[in-house]
Parts: sequence; structure tokens; C-alpha cells
Amino acid sequence: MQQQKLFINGQRLAETIEHFADFGRTDNNGVTRLALSEQDIAVRGYFRSCCESLGMTVVVDDMGCMYATLAGVEDVPPIVIGSHMDTVKKGGRFDGILGVIAGLEIVRTLVDHGIKPRIPITIVNFTNEEGARFEPSMMASGVLSGKFAKADMLNKKDSDGITFGDALAQSGYAGEVSHRIQEATAYLELHIEQGPVLEREELQIGLVDCVVGMVCYEIEVMGESDHAGTTPMDMRKDAFFAMNDLVTMLRTQLSTLDSELVYTMGRANVFPNIHTVIPNKVTFTLEARHKNEEIVREVEHIIQRLPAMQGDCEVKSTLLWGRDTVWFDLTICEKLETSVQALGYSYKKMASGAGHDAQFVAHFLPSAMVFVPSVNGKSHCEEELTSYEDCEKGINVLLDTVLGMLES
Amino acid sequence: MQQQKLFINGQRLAETIEHFADFGRTDNNGVTRLALSEQDIAVRGYFRSCCESLGMTVVVDDMGCMYATLAGVEDVPPIVIGSHMDTVKKGGRFDGILGVIAGLEIVRTLVDHGIKPRIPITIVNFTNEEGARFEPSMMASGVLSGKFAKADMLNKKDSDGITFGDALAQSGYAGEVSHRIQEATAYLELHIEQGPVLEREELQIGLVDCVVGMVCYEIEVMGESDHAGTTPMDMRKDAFFAMNDLVTMLRTQLSTLDSELVYTMGRANVFPNIHTVIPNKVTFTLEARHKNEEIVREVEHIIQRLPAMQGDCEVKSTLLWGRDTVWFDLTICEKLETSVQALGYSYKKMASGAGHDAQFVAHFLPSAMVFVPSVNGKSHCEEELTSYEDCEKGINVLLDTVLGMLES
Repeated sequence: MQQQKLFINGQRLAETIEHFADFGRTDNNGVTRLALSEQDIAVRGYFRSCCESLGMTVVVDDMGCMYATLAGVEDVPPIVIGSHMDTVKKGGRFDGILGVIAGLEIVRTLVDHGIKPRIPITIVNFTNEEGARFEPSMMASGVLSGKFAKADMLNKKDSDGITFGDALAQSGYAGEVSHRIQEATAYLELHIEQGPVLEREELQIGLVDCVVGMVCYEIEVMGESDHAGTTPMDMRKDAFFAMNDLVTMLRTQLSTLDSELVYTMGRANVFPNIHTVIPNKVTFTLEARHKNEEIVREVEHIIQRLPAMQGDCEVKSTLLWGRDTVWFDLTICEKLETSVQALGYSYKKMASGAGHDAQFVAHFLPSAMVFVPSVNGKSHCEEELTSYEDCEKGINVLLDTVLGMLES
Repeated sequence: MQQQKLFINGQRLAETIEHFADFGRTDNNGVTRLALSEQDIAVRGYFRSCCESLGMTVVVDDMGCMYATLAGVEDVPPIVIGSHMDTVKKGGRFDGILGVIAGLEIVRTLVDHGIKPRIPITIVNFTNEEGARFEPSMMASGVLSGKFAKADMLNKKDSDGITFGDALAQSGYAGEVSHRIQEATAYLELHIEQGPVLEREELQIGLVDCVVGMVCYEIEVMGESDHAGTTPMDMRKDAFFAMNDLVTMLRTQLSTLDSELVYTMGRANVFPNIHTVIPNKVTFTLEARHKNEEIVREVEHIIQRLPAMQGDCEVKSTLLWGRDTVWFDLTICEKLETSVQALGYSYKKMASGAGHDAQFVAHFLPSAMVFVPSVNGKSHCEEELTSYEDCEKGINVLLDTVLGMLES
């Protein structure tokens, strides 16, 4: 039976969030801390010192991921808590780092109360989650899960032509392959929602049961460039007008599928893009996400049934990539729900529309995620905000679940 | 009464077209002869020598325009025939140069037959009509008509930072302001259609009664960027979807106006243009042309009646520029029609959808234009083609009209 409830120290949490934000803080109270940059190396050093002062042991794997472990009474696979410390350029103070701080505050709370855990507790910092300096995103967790080939990743270059491999070596964080996390009792990741749903529904906690599957297609419309002044309307092969009709068609059909489906045409390019020339080519992307893979398949069918010719223009679609829905560990999800209910916080079960390290980690460790609300749904910007109180509640949920695991 | 009909020498015309095309001919049988480039300077020298060998006097004005004059029996304002010799990059063998060659072949025909004309004949080459090296297009005729300020034009720079004024001085073609053409009996410009209408209707000659008026607007749609995965559809301010609806609205209304109206959305840019981010801004141009200014005004009303908000996105439209329809001289148009009929060529009266030097020249000289068919409607490309026979017919129309003017 669980003893008297423990809570983290809210005041210390707020100070910790701001202290970490000092590493790369921007003029507008955001954070720029690109992977393996000077700021990232500095925050890694600070994180290490925080952990070591708690009596934890810090090791680094060959992708630069850091693991700080508080030894357990039993020699069993650890409970792993974490996320990433890198940010996008002009990002916020919460995305990623909150998941690492969650681990730190949980261990601090255990240490405060003189608890030596039955199971070791490991805090992890995954390298280059954002992919803002080196594409792709979730690079290190992708390598650990076998989704990405390490050799390819080492050769990825930033905009200055520096490879990830060189940056890693120069950072001093090229560790041992043997230090990669391989087994765990659980992997728990706390993250800001990065969307507006919790705020709109006035809920404190999101229990994430999956990361939604998605597809991204590029649709190319090939027309013919003619003079905008001399070509009658009925003799044109206008790729822009054809694109417009295709987009209307797609939106009409997609809107009938499911209210939780999200779809975005985020990138579109017109050629030659001159006001006096009829466009001969338009390309645009259609990216759609839903946790139910059958709905994602329906999206693909809609794209595949596009006419081969539209307004005398040729239409081609190409799958750029897709990923299946990743479902989190049901047992851990249930434990988290029990904790939320015990704490009396308002919550909902939800899918993650964004990608996270946990979606790769879930392939080899039993994993789950918890979301806390994002003000105005904003992230990846300096305005990114989650109240300290909401952060505190999120960590208390993880703490309660960890304590439950330590007892049973 | 007119004597026995004269015709130009078709064989010589074909050779002349190809000889001029040698100045800047590309590997794909097009021409690159940017204004005041090495190739333009070379072709100017060749043109001068052709004219001087016919006994013509060549002068140059302060904008580099060349005037080659065959003296007349009477000291009256000349009949001016011409166009431009510059091309766009990888342009064709006909655009512009055909109007200059027309003058040359007409004078050669007169000289062949020992005719000293009653009225002087002047062949003109207007500098930098294309605006491909120095914007704007129709630069020199624009200055001559008072539409452009000469001082501004001299400061226009090419992509290497060279000003038009410096290029003109270095070319050796900075002549005298007193040489500008100021009065004429007529200005006649033969040009390729640059559109598909004559070819589609299987006609040999286009008698151009006007250069159509036009407007060009930029429409800006301001939404909000949010994460493509985490933002439910009903909470988005998607500027791309709003643009899609606006374009549909515009096309639906524009399509009801008049079958001769042409409208083009040639330039569109999406921001931030990332497949995983909901677009926060889309801009697109709407350019419309029609000879009836009331119809152009209706286009403007349609744009002005666009909703201020569409799909929670702000909509703004800005007039980039406009020009009124320029009507050519009715008497000259009638003379040309009489000539076409006398020659038995098939023809139609038509508007020019593209801009030409004649539209500026018409402000101070009685002017008219003749079109010959463009194969596939193509121009400003290496495939630009008008058959030698069609070129010949076009010049014969001008020759017949000139001979008529010389007699009366």
C-alpha cells in the first residue's frame, strides 16, 4: 500500500525551468539551443552536475544521449524518465526540457525524502530530437530503435556543412555504444501538448495513448506556360487553376472522413512564378494524420483517385513518407490514469499529433507519454508557454506512477 | 492609281531573318541578344551597314534608338517602320527583329525597283523593348512618349549592377536628343502574335486595333501558423485553404464577364512553406486584360468585393499597376485592311494582349500594328516560330500600305 502522497516542490520546479532556460535564452524569453551547439554543450554540463550532486551516475552513449541513474535497491531494469534538451531556433522554454526536468525533480523529491528506490531511476536526454540543426528529427532515438542507420546519421550536415559525427566528437559527448539504453521497466515522457486541445477543453492533463500515423504526399500538376496577355482562356493549360480545383476536390472529400483527421497543405510552389506567365507547374504537399490507420488509408485512396488530367494538366502524386500509428504500453497508460484520478486532476486520453522520441523508444521499451497544456497551442516559438502549475501537475502524475512502480 | 503590285523578295527575306539571328544564336536555334550586350552592339552595326548600303542615313538618339532614313522627294514627316532588335534570354528569331527587317525589306524593294519615295522612309530600332536586361520593358519608347523619366531609366541596373546609362555610353550608341523621332506620317510595326489565335483560326494576318488595358493586383491572405499534427481542423487559420476558397470565388465571378477577358494568377507564394506547418500567409497575383475598360473595371470591383475575412484569415488586395487600352490610328488601320484585302490574305481584326513599343509610340505618332501567326502561340523561347511565308505576307501588307501612302 502506498504511503502518504509525495509531491514535487513547485517553487523549485519554477526555478529549475528558468535556470535551464538560461542556456540559450533569447531576447524575447524563448530559447535557441540547437543540438550540440555551445548552448547545448553548456546545458548538458549543468544537467550532469545537477544529477551528480544527487548521487546519480552519468554515462553517455555513442549518439551522445545522456543517462543519469539513481541506483536502486534491486538490480532490475530502470524506470526511465526523459526527453530532449535541444530546441529549434527561437524555440521555447518547455518543449523537450520539461521531460528531462521531470526526471530531475522526481529524483530530487525521492532524495529529499531519503527514499532509495527499489528500481533504479534513469533520466535520459536524447540527442537532436528537433532535427533543427541536423535532419531528421528524433535522430538519436531513431538510431536506438533501429529506424535510422547510425552511419547515415553521422554524415548528416548542418547548414555550415559540419557533420553530426564531427559535431558529436567535438562536443565531448561521443560515448559508448554499450551505454545505449536497452531495457527498462518503463519509459515515461512528459511533454507540452504543442496543440490547443487541452486548453480549449480546460483540462490539466493529457494521457497519450498513441502517436498518430501519417502520410505525406507531394502532388504535381503539369500545365503549359503561355503569355498571360495573348492566350485565350479556353486555350490554356493553367497549372495553378488545375491545382485550385484539385485542392477543392481533396478538401471536400477529406472533410467527410473523421472529425479527428488533420490535413495540411503546407508547402506549395508555382513555376515559373511570374505574374505575366501562365504557370506550367504547381507542386503541393498533402500531409494527413489520424490514429486509425484505416482512415489514413482512406486519405491515400482519395489521393490515388485524383484524376490523371485536370484542366488539361497532368496530375501525379508521390508518397513522400508515411508512418504507422505507434500505440503506447497499455499497462503503463493505465497506471498513469490511476495516478491522475488519485490526484484529482482533470484529464483526457488523447493521441499525439506531433512526433516524439517516445514513438521510437516504444519499439523497444514499454513507453507512455503525458501532456500538459500549451497556451494558445503554441510551440516551437518564443511565445511557447505552459504554466508552472500545469508543469507541476504533470510531473506529480509521473511521480505518483513511479512511486506506484517502486512499491509493487 | 497604283501601278503594278510590288512584292518583297521572299528568298532574301528568309536569308535576312537567319542572318540577323546569327547575332546571338543559341544552340537550340533561338537568340540571346540582350539590350546593349555584345550581340546587340554587333547586330546594330550590321543593321547600320545594311541601311547605309541602301543609301540611307542613320542617326541615333539619346536613348540609343537608331533611325535609318531613305530620303523622300518631299520634305515631309517620314513613314516610320520598325520595332526592336533586343531579345529576352533564350528568346526567338522573330520577336522584335521582324519589325525592323520589315522596314529593311520594304526599302530594299523600293531600291530594287529604282523608286525614290515621295515621303521619306525611316526604319527604327527601339532600345531595350524587352526589359530583359534593364527593367522596365519598352524603356526607350516609354521615354520618347513621356511615360518614363529618362533620368530614372539611365539609373536602371542589370543583374551585374551596370546601369543602363553606363551600358549605353560604352556601347557607342548614346546619341543626340534632337534625333528622337517627333513626327511621322505613320508608324507601322509588324510583330509576331505571341499567341495562338491566328494559328487556331487558320488566318494569315492580324490587324491590331488596340493594345488591351490591364490591371495587376496582389492579394494577401494572413492566417496563423500552427503545428500540422496537433491543431484540430476547426481551430485553424489556414491561409492556404482560405486562398483556395478565394481563388474559386474569383474564378467563378471572372468567368461570367466576357469571353475575351484573360486573367492569370501567375505568382503565388506560401509562408513558411513547410509541409508540417499550417501556412500563415499566402500571396498571389491576379492580372486581367481586356480592351474594354469597363470590363477591366468590373474585374477590379470583383477584387474589391472580396470578403475582408475568409476562413478566419485576413484578406487584403493591393493594385500593383494598371494601364488603359491604347487604340491605334483608325485611318492607318483602314489602309492596312484595304491592303490585306487587295492581297487576298485571310485576316481578322484583333487586340494585342501583349505590350509593344507601338502602344507608347501611339501617344505621339499615328500608329498601327500587324500580327503574323506564332506556331503554337509560343514566343520568348527558343521554339518561337513564324513561317517565312507568313513573315513575307505580313511585310507585303506593310509594303502595300506604304506604296499607297507614297502615291496619294
